[in-house]
Amino acid sequence: MLSEIFKLLNLETKFDLAAIKIQDIKDLNSASKNCITFFHSKKYSEQAKSTKASYCLTKDNLKEYLPSTCQSIIVENVLIATALITGKFYPDSINDDYDTTVNEIEKTNFDKIKHGKNVLIGRNVKIGSNCQIGHNTIIEKNVHVGENCKIGSNTIIRNSIIKNDVTILDNCIIGKKGFGFFPNKEKNIRYPHIGIVLINENCEIGCGATIDRGSMSNTEIGKNTFLDNQIHIAHNVKIGANTIIAGQVGIAGSSIIGSNVRIGGQAGISGHLKIGDNVDIAGGSGVIKDIPSNTKVMGYPAKNIREFLRENK
Amino acid sequence: MLSEIFKLLNLETKFDLAAIKIQDIKDLNSASKNCITFFHSKKYSEQAKSTKASYCLTKDNLKEYLPSTCQSIIVENVLIATALITGKFYPDSINDDYDTTVNEIEKTNFDKIKHGKNVLIGRNVKIGSNCQIGHNTIIEKNVHVGENCKIGSNTIIRNSIIKNDVTILDNCIIGKKGFGFFPNKEKNIRYPHIGIVLINENCEIGCGATIDRGSMSNTEIGKNTFLDNQIHIAHNVKIGANTIIAGQVGIAGSSIIGSNVRIGGQAGISGHLKIGDNVDIAGGSGVIKDIPSNTKVMGYPAKNIREFLRENK
Amino acid sequence: MLSEIFKLLNLETKFDLAAIKIQDIKDLNSASKNCITFFHSKKYSEQAKSTKASYCLTKDNLKEYLPSTCQSIIVENVLIATALITGKFYPDSINDDYDTTVNEIEKTNFDKIKHGKNVLIGRNVKIGSNCQIGHNTIIEKNVHVGENCKIGSNTIIRNSIIKNDVTILDNCIIGKKGFGFFPNKEKNIRYPHIGIVLINENCEIGCGATIDRGSMSNTEIGKNTFLDNQIHIAHNVKIGANTIIAGQVGIAGSSIIGSNVRIGGQAGISGHLKIGDNVDIAGGSGVIKDIPSNTKVMGYPAKNIREFLRENK
Repeated sequence: MLSEIFKLLNLETKFDLAAIKIQDIKDLNSASKNCITFFHSKKYSEQAKSTKASYCLTKDNLKEYLPSTCQSIIVENVLIATALITGKFYPDSINDDYDTTVNEIEKTNFDKIKHGKNVLIGRNVKIGSNCQIGHNTIIEKNVHVGENCKIGSNTIIRNSIIKNDVTILDNCIIGKKGFGFFPNKEKNIRYPHIGIVLINENCEIGCGATIDRGSMSNTEIGKNTFLDNQIHIAHNVKIGANTIIAGQVGIAGSSIIGSNVRIGGQAGISGHLKIGDNVDIAGGSGVIKDIPSNTKVMGYPAKNIREFLRENK
Repeated sequence: MLSEIFKLLNLETKFDLAAIKIQDIKDLNSASKNCITFFHSKKYSEQAKSTKASYCLTKDNLKEYLPSTCQSIIVENVLIATALITGKFYPDSINDDYDTTVNEIEKTNFDKIKHGKNVLIGRNVKIGSNCQIGHNTIIEKNVHVGENCKIGSNTIIRNSIIKNDVTILDNCIIGKKGFGFFPNKEKNIRYPHIGIVLINENCEIGCGATIDRGSMSNTEIGKNTFLDNQIHIAHNVKIGANTIIAGQVGIAGSSIIGSNVRIGGQAGISGHLKIGDNVDIAGGSGVIKDIPSNTKVMGYPAKNIREFLRENK
Repeated sequence: MLSEIFKLLNLETKFDLAAIKIQDIKDLNSASKNCITFFHSKKYSEQAKSTKASYCLTKDNLKEYLPSTCQSIIVENVLIATALITGKFYPDSINDDYDTTVNEIEKTNFDKIKHGKNVLIGRNVKIGSNCQIGHNTIIEKNVHVGENCKIGSNTIIRNSIIKNDVTILDNCIIGKKGFGFFPNKEKNIRYPHIGIVLINENCEIGCGATIDRGSMSNTEIGKNTFLDNQIHIAHNVKIGANTIIAGQVGIAGSSIIGSNVRIGGQAGISGHLKIGDNVDIAGGSGVIKDIPSNTKVMGYPAKNIREFLRENK
């Protein structure tokens, strides 16, 4: 199956392709035996050391971190190689075509659920008891919604698991592919997004939210976390529990936000950062580096709030 | 009626509950005789002095500001007490369930109004003459729309009064509950929103706006005020007349903006601020304190524009 | 035809109105013989010198730049005069009324196109082969869509030309009038928008985008340019090829962005600026002046990124 990809990567001479039986492609943490994984930055060397994957796309200077059970496959660009192989395993992961399996809710098994007009439900959807779904909302194939959930009007949910007692307001787009691709002159190469969006119990998602699904891992919102209107959560972001995020905040891809965090309106958080627990980020701040737990920050770039206010009287 | 709430607040021993006949809960300004009101911060001491409410939830150190006609009720947390009591008076004020009373416009009395496809209209809606309503738009129960109004497509309006000659473009959410709640470990406690959105004559509201309704008072947009796309106006905000607000601006809860104000794109205004008349706020500014009339500000935190530009050459 | 307008402008004594045969109103560049154009700022003196228009609304101190083939018409306020005359030529250019010509796609010639539920298509629409259109999407009259395009759900497109291989995701509003008007006490005067939105080959437009059509020229997105979610592109903006724009970015009216530009999340670009090619604008930046090609900037106001980071350690 991978032979054509390996050819693209100029790897044909190095491996006995017939002998390679790969079941899936996963990230370093989630890969199991017979999976292929990828390792492109020293940042992830701890995870690399304990990966259970049988194969790993990587660079020459990183292969030493891999355990002996994991065969390294040296490629020129680890992420492009990963994208190409993932696209082979999951052809749908690159597109976000509208769901052709949806049907009017009245024509599905969910006709007993409290629902508005023009609601569309896809194949293999699960919806728990005591839910309600507003007008013009679309719940695409394979989405799971827990019990006691309220979903507003004009909202689209795909590739997502919504736990119990979650409220999602109007005009949200939950679970579309993230903004991940490799720039390429004629036509950019889309990075696959095989992760989902996982929204845990008691969350509230405000109007107009866009929460993109993960690429190789999931995008996650922790329990009892509340989001105000017009918030953008990019792919692979993980947010802890009891966090409060005010309007128009944006969180770039793969950042990890702790629990009991408060983020003021219009604040922005760059990608691949780690924000600890009990952090206060003032409205309008621009966070461009990690923030330890129990810290209050403000400004652009965000720094200790007292320092910022002293310097900006 | 309030005895169970008073028990929750550990007030049962202090009042002759049978003697308390409360008609409504309102803020300090709007409360009349036989109303209960609330007073939680010295900031509002002027309003407290002249309130006409018969009862007031407050703290021990604030009760002295109340007039002799107003009986103070001392509680541990004024706002939580207010939320709990308001939820008793207005059980619907905590939810934003989709409107189950809506019907296709062709099946209502509004079938003569110029309208697009799939328009839904709720119970007790009023719409003046010479209006038009675009495709897929939902006007929920009790909304009033004046004459000569144009409402775009994919827009949802609830809990609102729209005066004459107002234009509301596509994809707006007008009148949902605001982002007000008391953080609580297992499940945050939603603050009631019994206010409405009031949009005055000749306003234009751009695409993708979210204008939340007020909690105890109203959210108001003054006459001939124009809003560009993707603007977020939080609960209780009051904006004067002839104000111009560019794209992606966000105004946090309870701030008061004057008339003839110009706010540049992506500017943010923190909550509970007072911005005077004829103020210019440069695009991208972050306003974190009151701004007097006839001032031009820029920066984060926003300061006098000349000073900002001198310091940031 | 123009006599009533000229009266409004107090021009009746100066011209033999019967002799003026004007075919159209265009900007300095696009106007041809028998067109009227406008010239309101010295910034455009180069374009003025070579205009082919027969008439030009302008100010006394600018008329000297016009060629001898172009008769100057001196008015008090060039832009208001332009707006009034354009409104005469194009009565629809001031409104954005919902399209009354749309019909369910199943009842149009496009019933063979892959499409979701509740899709509406206006009169004179053209759609190329191998396209798909998601649920609840509206393609208004006169829109042209090329081949191999994917348009998501809940999206509205008007006044636009979409070239081949373009992807537009959910909840976008493409082609509405821009936020251009002349402030006026009782009721602001809307500036006409007769331009379109032109989206070139291989572009991707993220969810919740608002891309406004041009006023006198077009709004243009170059080939293979990718936009993330919740982006606002104002009227007359022109963006080059292979540019990458992250979430929640806003670009104000008439700015010109080069090719191979990268703009980080939540950055804002003021109006009427020129950003060169190969520019990197860091997330959260506020750009308030032109940026030459091959530059990296950061901050508010945006400056050289090294300088910014040195000053903000």
